[in-house]
Amino acid sequence: MFYHDNKLQYPVRVDTPSPVFAKMLQQAIGGVEGEIRVALQYLFQSFGSRGPTKYRDMLMDTGTEELAHIQMLATAVALNLEGSPASVQEAAARENPMVAAVMGGMEPRQYLSAGMAALAADANGVPFNGSHVYASGNIVADMYSNVAAEATGRVLACRLFDMTDDPGMKDMLRYLIARDTMHQQQWLAVIEELGGYQANLPIPNSFDQGQELLEVSYDFFATGIDGIETPAGRWTSGPSLDGKGEYRVRRSVPFGEEPKLAPPSPSGYAQSQQMTGAAQAQSDTPITGRPSDEDRNL
Amino acid sequence: MFYHDNKLQYPVRVDTPSPVFAKMLQQAIGGVEGEIRVALQYLFQSFGSRGPTKYRDMLMDTGTEELAHIQMLATAVALNLEGSPASVQEAAARENPMVAAVMGGMEPRQYLSAGMAALAADANGVPFNGSHVYASGNIVADMYSNVAAEATGRVLACRLFDMTDDPGMKDMLRYLIARDTMHQQQWLAVIEELGGYQANLPIPNSFDQGQELLEVSYDFFATGIDGIETPAGRWTSGPSLDGKGEYRVRRSVPFGEEPKLAPPSPSGYAQSQQMTGAAQAQSDTPITGRPSDEDRNL
Amino acid sequence: MFYHDNKLQYPVRVDTPSPVFAKMLQQAIGGVEGEIRVALQYLFQSFGSRGPTKYRDMLMDTGTEELAHIQMLATAVALNLEGSPASVQEAAARENPMVAAVMGGMEPRQYLSAGMAALAADANGVPFNGSHVYASGNIVADMYSNVAAEATGRVLACRLFDMTDDPGMKDMLRYLIARDTMHQQQWLAVIEELGGYQANLPIPNSFDQGQELLEVSYDFFATGIDGIETPAGRWTSGPSLDGKGEYRVRRSVPFGEEPKLAPPSPSGYAQSQQMTGAAQAQSDTPITGRPSDEDRNL
Amino acid sequence: MFYHDNKLQYPVRVDTPSPVFAKMLQQAIGGVEGEIRVALQYLFQSFGSRGPTKYRDMLMDTGTEELAHIQMLATAVALNLEGSPASVQEAAARENPMVAAVMGGMEPRQYLSAGMAALAADANGVPFNGSHVYASGNIVADMYSNVAAEATGRVLACRLFDMTDDPGMKDMLRYLIARDTMHQQQWLAVIEELGGYQANLPIPNSFDQGQELLEVSYDFFATGIDGIETPAGRWTSGPSLDGKGEYRVRRSVPFGEEPKLAPPSPSGYAQSQQMTGAAQAQSDTPITGRPSDEDRNL
Amino acid sequence: MFYHDNKLQYPVRVDTPSPVFAKMLQQAIGGVEGEIRVALQYLFQSFGSRGPTKYRDMLMDTGTEELAHIQMLATAVALNLEGSPASVQEAAARENPMVAAVMGGMEPRQYLSAGMAALAADANGVPFNGSHVYASGNIVADMYSNVAAEATGRVLACRLFDMTDDPGMKDMLRYLIARDTMHQQQWLAVIEELGGYQANLPIPNSFDQGQELLEVSYDFFATGIDGIETPAGRWTSGPSLDGKGEYRVRRSVPFGEEPKLAPPSPSGYAQSQQMTGAAQAQSDTPITGRPSDEDRNL
Amino acid sequence: MFYHDNKLQYPVRVDTPSPVFAKMLQQAIGGVEGEIRVALQYLFQSFGSRGPTKYRDMLMDTGTEELAHIQMLATAVALNLEGSPASVQEAAARENPMVAAVMGGMEPRQYLSAGMAALAADANGVPFNGSHVYASGNIVADMYSNVAAEATGRVLACRLFDMTDDPGMKDMLRYLIARDTMHQQQWLAVIEELGGYQANLPIPNSFDQGQELLEVSYDFFATGIDGIETPAGRWTSGPSLDGKGEYRVRRSVPFGEEPKLAPPSPSGYAQSQQMTGAAQAQSDTPITGRPSDEDRNL
Repeated sequence: MFYHDNKLQYPVRVDTPSPVFAKMLQQAIGGVEGEIRVALQYLFQSFGSRGPTKYRDMLMDTGTEELAHIQMLATAVALNLEGSPASVQEAAARENPMVAAVMGGMEPRQYLSAGMAALAADANGVPFNGSHVYASGNIVADMYSNVAAEATGRVLACRLFDMTDDPGMKDMLRYLIARDTMHQQQWLAVIEELGGYQANLPIPNSFDQGQELLEVSYDFFATGIDGIETPAGRWTSGPSLDGKGEYRVRRSVPFGEEPKLAPPSPSGYAQSQQMTGAAQAQSDTPITGRPSDEDRNL
Repeated sequence: MFYHDNKLQYPVRVDTPSPVFAKMLQQAIGGVEGEIRVALQYLFQSFGSRGPTKYRDMLMDTGTEELAHIQMLATAVALNLEGSPASVQEAAARENPMVAAVMGGMEPRQYLSAGMAALAADANGVPFNGSHVYASGNIVADMYSNVAAEATGRVLACRLFDMTDDPGMKDMLRYLIARDTMHQQQWLAVIEELGGYQANLPIPNSFDQGQELLEVSYDFFATGIDGIETPAGRWTSGPSLDGKGEYRVRRSVPFGEEPKLAPPSPSGYAQSQQMTGAAQAQSDTPITGRPSDEDRNL
Repeated sequence: MFYHDNKLQYPVRVDTPSPVFAKMLQQAIGGVEGEIRVALQYLFQSFGSRGPTKYRDMLMDTGTEELAHIQMLATAVALNLEGSPASVQEAAARENPMVAAVMGGMEPRQYLSAGMAALAADANGVPFNGSHVYASGNIVADMYSNVAAEATGRVLACRLFDMTDDPGMKDMLRYLIARDTMHQQQWLAVIEELGGYQANLPIPNSFDQGQELLEVSYDFFATGIDGIETPAGRWTSGPSLDGKGEYRVRRSVPFGEEPKLAPPSPSGYAQSQQMTGAAQAQSDTPITGRPSDEDRNL
Repeated sequence: MFYHDNKLQYPVRVDTPSPVFAKMLQQAIGGVEGEIRVALQYLFQSFGSRGPTKYRDMLMDTGTEELAHIQMLATAVALNLEGSPASVQEAAARENPMVAAVMGGMEPRQYLSAGMAALAADANGVPFNGSHVYASGNIVADMYSNVAAEATGRVLACRLFDMTDDPGMKDMLRYLIARDTMHQQQWLAVIEELGGYQANLPIPNSFDQGQELLEVSYDFFATGIDGIETPAGRWTSGPSLDGKGEYRVRRSVPFGEEPKLAPPSPSGYAQSQQMTGAAQAQSDTPITGRPSDEDRNL
Repeated sequence: MFYHDNKLQYPVRVDTPSPVFAKMLQQAIGGVEGEIRVALQYLFQSFGSRGPTKYRDMLMDTGTEELAHIQMLATAVALNLEGSPASVQEAAARENPMVAAVMGGMEPRQYLSAGMAALAADANGVPFNGSHVYASGNIVADMYSNVAAEATGRVLACRLFDMTDDPGMKDMLRYLIARDTMHQQQWLAVIEELGGYQANLPIPNSFDQGQELLEVSYDFFATGIDGIETPAGRWTSGPSLDGKGEYRVRRSVPFGEEPKLAPPSPSGYAQSQQMTGAAQAQSDTPITGRPSDEDRNL
Repeated sequence: MFYHDNKLQYPVRVDTPSPVFAKMLQQAIGGVEGEIRVALQYLFQSFGSRGPTKYRDMLMDTGTEELAHIQMLATAVALNLEGSPASVQEAAARENPMVAAVMGGMEPRQYLSAGMAALAADANGVPFNGSHVYASGNIVADMYSNVAAEATGRVLACRLFDMTDDPGMKDMLRYLIARDTMHQQQWLAVIEELGGYQANLPIPNSFDQGQELLEVSYDFFATGIDGIETPAGRWTSGPSLDGKGEYRVRRSVPFGEEPKLAPPSPSGYAQSQQMTGAAQAQSDTPITGRPSDEDRNL
């Protein structure tokens, strides 16, 4: 279970409030790269953790930390919405500086729905969506989901860092960026501890690989039409990263035939022509898709 | 731009149609681990790719392949919905076997909305949501998002493999599982080609790490209350994976103070007591949260 | 503005309650083909109607009618949830027949969230989504959106008709199906009144067609690769329906070149390799996507 | 900021695992009446709290408690998914009891996406949606939102209590139901402390009521057509609850005229007939909506 | 299955990048009228096509073409985000022109989440939602859904055309507008080929029309209260478009009675007053809704 | 069933059109505090009402009234989008004032998707979501949901009132604010009529309170860590509002133990290390979370 104290994990200070920046910070709260997502993701991974308990406990440690980041960012939003920002100077003469701020490009619901505070939503006001809480029950799949979340999360934080000149906001972001640095390497360290690529790939490693169609397990399929080249890379030749195969490039051609579905059932209420039309359709003369050579002479 | 032929990438055959399995397959079509997601994700990463064009082209190759997987799975759904499945035998006497199937646990909208065909939705009928198309503009963040997608995707395919006894469906899944094997290692191979952990961590590696609060960049924060131990692991001591720091464990304590927000602005239309109440509230005697010792004697 | 009386537009009677059918009826309430959608769609088209007021008033008439259909269906759901359905007979011995019904395949939230009543959601419990309220401001585009809604709506109602043996439910659906018959032809009649295909196509007819690239305005693009035939149809030759062009088939080839994006900006925080990598990438030897001829020998 | 220990707030025990009940419990985790919602709602209200800090601190206390409820319920889901439930006995002979469970009516994504664990979604698998996190900045509006959440939450918990015979689950729910009892009265106690109806209504009480159209501020509008009666109640006569007015019933009639919108602008790309059609439309003869008296003789 | 080459279907050129226009273009990518929707809609209709294969193949041709339109528009977004647009000149002095652009009204997530590229979302950043992929299994219902999509799509493209002065963007839109012209008439041509109104209405034409309540199948229901006129139109008199009935106007009156629901079941956990209150409620004196004549004297 | 006339419930007049205000008004139409929500909420509560019919009828009266509010607000949006607002004066020279308005901060889809009219969406363009239609089947829970809706709705209307100087818009809002005043007290009056706190708490009052864990039914749980005080209030001591208990403060401590989940099942496809790793994990030496005393010396 959970406890709190009344302080912030790291100081949150805003020297020059900016309603536009308050809007941008929402992405780090309720966006797909945001803190609600990682907090819930790590906690749900912990709640459902099976196997060695050390990972469950570690996930609980970090999921709990992320809750504090939501708090920091929500506080930053609230502080950025206070007072009258310079960028809407021309509105300052009006009786209501909030109105001017809203008119000047802020997230309208931070005022209309929240009275100058943060929302559980992203920078466009799209509500947080729980489907981004990835907790698959496979620890390595989960660790890669976590790395992905922290990688996009740190990219986001760096972009936010570039969008502000406010020393307080920059200081807060320096802290959050550092924590993302750690978390990226924390999740990758779990994979290393578990044996790295060779022990863990392909994920899940508990599926008998003899069951899969090994013939195509290490093939790069080039899907370009005739004449389109595919670039060479680490993934086109040489040993695969799991040490169990050899990469190669292969032309992507159909192994299957045309799909053939049964005619519609009466209860499906297709048009009656769909049910009787097979014969009629056959009488149509198919034509090639290439009747003219002047194709590019617009 | 794109082209097609009229065949399937791999044969799709259903020996014993199962409407319940048709529902399960939806997760692999429109679920968060599904093929619409990876197809759009790789294509959007390709469309927005900046820098060396080889990655753009490779993403286009694989994004195009994934489109064929959507087709295979949609065909599999349609075939699983044909005829009268054994599991609703008791309904076979009714005039309409489809009805029996719907009653027997299938996804109702495959009949009601699609007339016995696939939907752009997951196994619960939740529509595909474009927010899962991760394309951050940072190639390593994107590769980790792709690995996460293929790791959860292969886990899903293995679970589906276990849910069916149908030889045709098992054969199709053997193919898709093998392709996921390749794609996991393909995305990781990009990271290797770019220099692995040392060259790429922390992501983004283009942010001047001197700007972040390095003091906490390699610290594991233990957020347990007094007396709660945190387990040791690869992430609690030793060199960090990027070779730039040393992991350590640290007690998570607040570096910040209590958050202090300004009183509500008149235009925020808080209750009037919120605007005038600071004084009154002060007069209340705070009490500790620990009045009784019989706390566990329910 | 709106008024009500206390009666139903048409009798709603359930002879044998069926919680499974109560779930199916949700699609007609809150589904994409459902009554909330058409009610709001016609009302929003009416509210925003510009130009002759007769269409505004007609939309108001029918939008108001659809509100009564929501009421009928919601009543039908509530009645189907009453008592103990035959199909969960084995649960009848338990103290709570509702529980048995929920266990037996009903929509769980009709009990858990609504206490045996209808939800503003579809047959899978996915909440109604306002983005399906199409009201474009172009009356012919709107009429086609309405025809599409009533066409899929009547298909849905026919499928529901097939799913039930209950005389009361069949009677109610006979009424709703008849109303969909009218509404399909009502919206098409508006288009006829406005002059049909010739006067209205292409939609919008107020855009100067000389501005579009007429060279491709009546061409069917065949996107199959070499060797793939495209079938002939009304849309591959002969005069176009608007009388302004001639259909023809054309091979789909690129008119454009490779897309070329600028390198990433420093503020985008791509990986540093993306910013410097163009040269390095060039040194890779491109390979064709066709290295082997044994492609189908799995 | 936040802390944790490794124990549950209250014991979670499952004597007879039931995958169907595991699905139902999801409503209490990620549903609109669920624990993710109340946890985030109280925390966001706390994070954005302006005015007396005592309410901020109290909200933090209870928001933190709710996090523990998510954990309890997620644990209950995981335990209910273990082993082979009696209700899918006929599937027990198959090699994989999980498969049987999924086939037998469980939430498929608890297996497919989570490997037998909880999701951040409701009983239909609809993901948690952050728009339900109400935090308006007005403390009494927020308290009523909280009462509504706890009232629907306790109703949900009672229904869940009725759906299970499992002693462990019943014990856990007895605890959660009791906590909802407290929380209902906790939020109402805040309103009492602030002065009750008279001091707080209408909400917000900081808007100058002289600005509103007081003429209709205490009127019940009867919207029935002629002949429809409206029932008497506490809200149709007598003093209003805020002591500032007198309830009365009033016929709902339009105070406004027909809405008149300007014709479409050329840039709106309506159909051309909409732009020129006003005159033409006028020539149509309006007809009354009452041509026949045999209206009910179907 | 699918293939690609590396070129664009039509040239995409941006002369003067505009981040605001990049935001607008999102509507044509991920909006309800956008290209992801039509691409998936035509492909899912093709994947699930039953009956004559010619429609399946035609849908595949055009679905594949639409994929190229997504690519064109995503490229257009990326190009519009490059460099420093004139409209944020005053921000040019800052070290980071991207920041200025974001501040100046662009879609924030194109920078924050995508690093200056397109998203799978609409102009407000609302993610693409798969429920707009209409594929009903009834070919005429589907064709009308497709016409509706192309009609609203061409209206959108014309509006975008009006929003830009950029010659490159105008050229691209001239192409897309022309393709929408074709697609509107392509889908309508299918209906013509299948026999037009008489052969196809009402949709589905495979439902025995004798089953519906023909008494109301061609009636326009006027829902105005007494005194409200309903305008005459093609849909109020004369033969119906399917040639099977005669339009007429009819006063909308209830055919049904008051809905009567059973009292709440104990397991529903209504308030106890709801279960016992019927008698008590009867004693209340009903009042008419018309107590006063001064209704409009505000 | 429902009827309409052609007039507005209250006059809607816009003196100086403002596209920015048209965007803000969307929150009152399709936002979580908006009119679509309350209209559908009251109507669904009425449709599903069980027990005394007077509440059903009253809900129908007010639900019908709210439909008229949607119409008023949609009309207000359309009028605010007409002509050329002063705030985009600098764009007036362009050929298309709409374009200028869109560029100047309006909701882009009001133009792109609706041709200068309202959407079924909120101020950020997020579509209305039916999950906000609360209709629990418990009348007091529903009344509190309604009070919450009207409380946040009136707060919203007051904020909108502050955002505009337009006399017509202010007049319309004065009317809507007054109606919200009534509706707040209407729903509370139902609770009073039913007996107030004592008769109705806890909700539902039909659950045998002896079944809940009364030991914690009136306890405020303080979840702060050691040293954190919790403020005193009406909810920390004295009789509970329902008269059935006594409030007290209690330290929040775990009553439960560590959650113990079974190891992963083979069919769950966890990593193999999760299945075999329990022993290995045990060998790790747990460490306390408190290795250093220099924790705050950054």
